[in-house]
Amino acid sequence: MENQFLLLPGPTQVPNRVLQAANQPMISHRSSCFKKIFSQVTQNAKRVFCTENDLLILTCSGTAGLEAAVVNFLNRGDKVIVASVGNFGNRFRDIAEAHGMDIDFIDFPLGTAIDPAVIADRLAADSQQQIKAILLQQHETSTGVYNPLAEISAARGNHPAMLFVDAVSGLGACPLKTDEWGLDVVVTSSQKALMVQPGLCLVTVSERAWAAAANNHNEKFYLDLTKAKKYADEKQTPFTPAVSLVYALNEAVDMLNEQGIDNVIAEHYFRRDAVRAAIKALGLKPVADDQVAGGAVTAVYTPKGITSAEITGIMREKYDTVIAGGMGAIKNTSFRIAHLGFIRDMDLIAAIGALELALWELGYNFELGTGVAACQKVIFEKRKIFKDRD
Amino acid sequence: MENQFLLLPGPTQVPNRVLQAANQPMISHRSSCFKKIFSQVTQNAKRVFCTENDLLILTCSGTAGLEAAVVNFLNRGDKVIVASVGNFGNRFRDIAEAHGMDIDFIDFPLGTAIDPAVIADRLAADSQQQIKAILLQQHETSTGVYNPLAEISAARGNHPAMLFVDAVSGLGACPLKTDEWGLDVVVTSSQKALMVQPGLCLVTVSERAWAAAANNHNEKFYLDLTKAKKYADEKQTPFTPAVSLVYALNEAVDMLNEQGIDNVIAEHYFRRDAVRAAIKALGLKPVADDQVAGGAVTAVYTPKGITSAEITGIMREKYDTVIAGGMGAIKNTSFRIAHLGFIRDMDLIAAIGALELALWELGYNFELGTGVAACQKVIFEKRKIFKDRD
Repeated sequence: MENQFLLLPGPTQVPNRVLQAANQPMISHRSSCFKKIFSQVTQNAKRVFCTENDLLILTCSGTAGLEAAVVNFLNRGDKVIVASVGNFGNRFRDIAEAHGMDIDFIDFPLGTAIDPAVIADRLAADSQQQIKAILLQQHETSTGVYNPLAEISAARGNHPAMLFVDAVSGLGACPLKTDEWGLDVVVTSSQKALMVQPGLCLVTVSERAWAAAANNHNEKFYLDLTKAKKYADEKQTPFTPAVSLVYALNEAVDMLNEQGIDNVIAEHYFRRDAVRAAIKALGLKPVADDQVAGGAVTAVYTPKGITSAEITGIMREKYDTVIAGGMGAIKNTSFRIAHLGFIRDMDLIAAIGALELALWELGYNFELGTGVAACQKVIFEKRKIFKDRD
Repeated sequence: MENQFLLLPGPTQVPNRVLQAANQPMISHRSSCFKKIFSQVTQNAKRVFCTENDLLILTCSGTAGLEAAVVNFLNRGDKVIVASVGNFGNRFRDIAEAHGMDIDFIDFPLGTAIDPAVIADRLAADSQQQIKAILLQQHETSTGVYNPLAEISAARGNHPAMLFVDAVSGLGACPLKTDEWGLDVVVTSSQKALMVQPGLCLVTVSERAWAAAANNHNEKFYLDLTKAKKYADEKQTPFTPAVSLVYALNEAVDMLNEQGIDNVIAEHYFRRDAVRAAIKALGLKPVADDQVAGGAVTAVYTPKGITSAEITGIMREKYDTVIAGGMGAIKNTSFRIAHLGFIRDMDLIAAIGALELALWELGYNFELGTGVAACQKVIFEKRKIFKDRD
């Protein structure tokens, strides 16, 4: 298992500082030492979410965090809107369906974002205010689209519907202001922009969501967030947490806060720009429209007659460079370069370099080096400014 | 301390397998477990040197190994030839000087290799066979030149002069056949093509050299190789060895032998070709002539008016890419890209990409992406053949 150039939408590359932190000796999760670390990382992680809401750290994947949102803050039969712009929108619907919600599923075309006006219309039509929550993605991993969360939240007007945000692939890579935008439940996982190994899930919960939890009747045990909060108030977890990953998260959150979350997000958008410049210079078409492209992932349509598996296969097998294939309807006809988490400028150059070599081998017609040069130009402009500013 | 794109002539990148191996618990260096590992790595490392001579593993840098060669197998006042094509040739002279040898120093122009005919002439002129040894580099790190060891060895004819080879930067990257070419002492260190962290030095010793050691009167203690051999015969070392580095070396030597040393060297020459293609496409001039360029390092003259420190500084500070500056007379006017040890194709792309960005920032006139494209073409041809062959 050798180091790869990892440009996946998770797991992402783990910085050395974080690897080292994970590699500390085990301690009891009931010890005062663990309590100190756990309460520290809980407090510090709130800055990444821009929130003073409660933040819970669970040992599970992001999907379980989304399920926790559904089972803790909604009751069977509740009316919800699920707004989807791709595969993970569909997954949030499946979770809500598994727990018997009454779902209004709104599907937007691939490559576009949720239209806040559509949400506003749906809520305006709900004169009895029966809609309990809107479930959506901050960033849709399958297409690389960022949904305009601030506008969608504002579209609620005076309607009391809660907003449950799947920020799994987008937190730290795209804008998200939990408190300013009134986001009730926000879920992310450790292996994306947080730069930690997989295994932890972070969930923030608003006062309003806690009020809903008080009247919740769903069957749940491991994902009972009220219990998690009770323990978190004592700087603990109800069940054994992934101790080494908590060490890692503590270090990673420090790294993000040292840089400042706004700067971290700005770096993601710069990397997006560098990758999109390369893609376009190669004559390829990104899946996400320019106006809605997020900072985490760039999904790209393959050239005619070439499948994503052919491209990703050559990149991985020959050039140790790992990007993702497509998902859903564009599984075979798109690939995804994630510029998510701990990615250095030269990782982008390596990824575009390897992509070009794969396309070249597969007979796509272009001039070798074109994409790299376009990428270099964006990098140069950014780093030149960076230098001048200092 | 974050991961860098490390294209230095040492320390080189340490593969994950080797890092993991180093990270094993400490054991007594007098335990049977350590003896087993130590004898295993000693045997296996001989394959990398293509030798059945004794091989000693010392805890010290390569320089100490070169000094050990001088103090164990030569006596004060002995006549030696030191053949130099650069900085490390000069260092071998300094070591011999420090121990009072009678030195015939032969200096060849920068960028050229040792001419075997010159050596043959010197030995032919030594009718009394007073010259005890020829001291030289297999590969001169400051210029990237490979000296034609086989031809130099053959140039000795019937003259009994021993050949002491500084193979510190070249072993595993350039051809070296210890037994076939009759090399008496060969020295390398762990942090080059062996892909291990610095701290270990490996020395092979021929029967002839051991015979010379039997009549050796120099003062020495730590570097006493007769003592080291006595302990090595018992699968031990006279003094505490760097245990974790022995673990690492054991794993790294396995990796090299799995691939086969000839294949490992061939990969180095392919990487040399890729880097030289890029350099030439950028209009830059390598220090080493084409015919003598080795597989370990490519030294390159900077463009007029640009210093190597400016280039390496931008690459390091802005792009996390570490190459070396120049040495000696061309310290400021050359830089060195090492393609030595554990280097992946996309490391080369990253290095050339970063080099271009630095040159661009420094006002050198060329088209961005030109070097990368040239490098990609060499890589593509190699990996295409590789695929066809399988």
